[in-house]
Amino acid sequence: MEKATRLFADKGYENTTLQDVAGAVGVSRTALYHYVTSKEELLAMLVEQMSLGLVDTLARLRDRTDLTPEGKLRELTDMLVRQRAESPHQFRVHDQTESVLPEPLRSRHRQARRDVLAALSAVIEEGVQRGEFKPLDARVAAFSILGMCNWVAWWYHPGPDYDIDGVARQISQSAIDMVAAGDASRGMADSARSALAMARSSLDALERMLPGDR
Amino acid sequence: MEKATRLFADKGYENTTLQDVAGAVGVSRTALYHYVTSKEELLAMLVEQMSLGLVDTLARLRDRTDLTPEGKLRELTDMLVRQRAESPHQFRVHDQTESVLPEPLRSRHRQARRDVLAALSAVIEEGVQRGEFKPLDARVAAFSILGMCNWVAWWYHPGPDYDIDGVARQISQSAIDMVAAGDASRGMADSARSALAMARSSLDALERMLPGDR
Repeated sequence: MEKATRLFADKGYENTTLQDVAGAVGVSRTALYHYVTSKEELLAMLVEQMSLGLVDTLARLRDRTDLTPEGKLRELTDMLVRQRAESPHQFRVHDQTESVLPEPLRSRHRQARRDVLAALSAVIEEGVQRGEFKPLDARVAAFSILGMCNWVAWWYHPGPDYDIDGVARQISQSAIDMVAAGDASRGMADSARSALAMARSSLDALERMLPGDR
Repeated sequence: MEKATRLFADKGYENTTLQDVAGAVGVSRTALYHYVTSKEELLAMLVEQMSLGLVDTLARLRDRTDLTPEGKLRELTDMLVRQRAESPHQFRVHDQTESVLPEPLRSRHRQARRDVLAALSAVIEEGVQRGEFKPLDARVAAFSILGMCNWVAWWYHPGPDYDIDGVARQISQSAIDMVAAGDASRGMADSARSALAMARSSLDALERMLPGDR
């Protein structure tokens, strides 16, 4: 599966033959036929493996009641970034081969994509409703966050330049900064308000001490 | 060019023939040969048209002295989003055909991609240096913003659901919110500080009016 994904991504699905896959694995074409009967079948297995597991995980995350929308968004983007960084070829093959996928796989794949978008939009919508996120268009925000996470499949290469923990942390934080309703200023406003209330009561006390003006 | 881009994006570059392009345009293959001699030539023209113009525009924007880093970032993302929304097929064909591009076009295309990234990173780096942006990894931030803008080529369809002005505005603002060093709280802090200074001088005046305690 890994070799096939890599070949599909590098040469294009159309230009890859089962013979290429057999060569990359280091077995004969006849031996490979023992496991898969066509390149379409290989592609189908890749799609199933990738999209469907992710959809379940995201749906469970969306429904957790122990996390705030911000917590959910952090987990969700972290998961997407790591998945794209681990299987970049798999992800890009998906994008390039959707039009050649046979039915019913094609429809299932499209549905899986819609489900991922729906889970992310639901989390953003929840944050907007609760006033924890800015009043923005949840779908445009979901697509923006997906784009940022998906793009990792294009640029990230494991190595000393970028450790994946740091990358995942920065991207998750970026997603939150994009949607969060200015927590920093809200936090500061709260402390400023209590300091003001204390200052006011001191002023009131001072006023009461002054000689009456009438 | 438009029909060819569309065909390359829909059927894949490998599966498209010059005959298909001629058919889509509504001319004979012989007539088409009058203008282009091969499908490789068509692809080369698409790549030149797309990448090279953008690189110049971005470099000019990066060097403008009348804009803050935030202003540059806003213009830059706005430009990228609109370009991706206008030519989604062109953009996706690029991604899918890089491995089949002949030299020296392939190297030029890669260089153009690196130049776009460098211009965006330079703007972010400038903002970080000036303390207007958070101290984040400028390259990871640049890739994140590029991903968000590029993804528009995958999801945006012109129509009543999304007007491009609204989409470009939200995405540009998201890019700024991702990197800006909490402008909201900084703005509030500034006004609070001047209010405090005024309050303090009133208290000083009040103090001077009170009978001396020694």
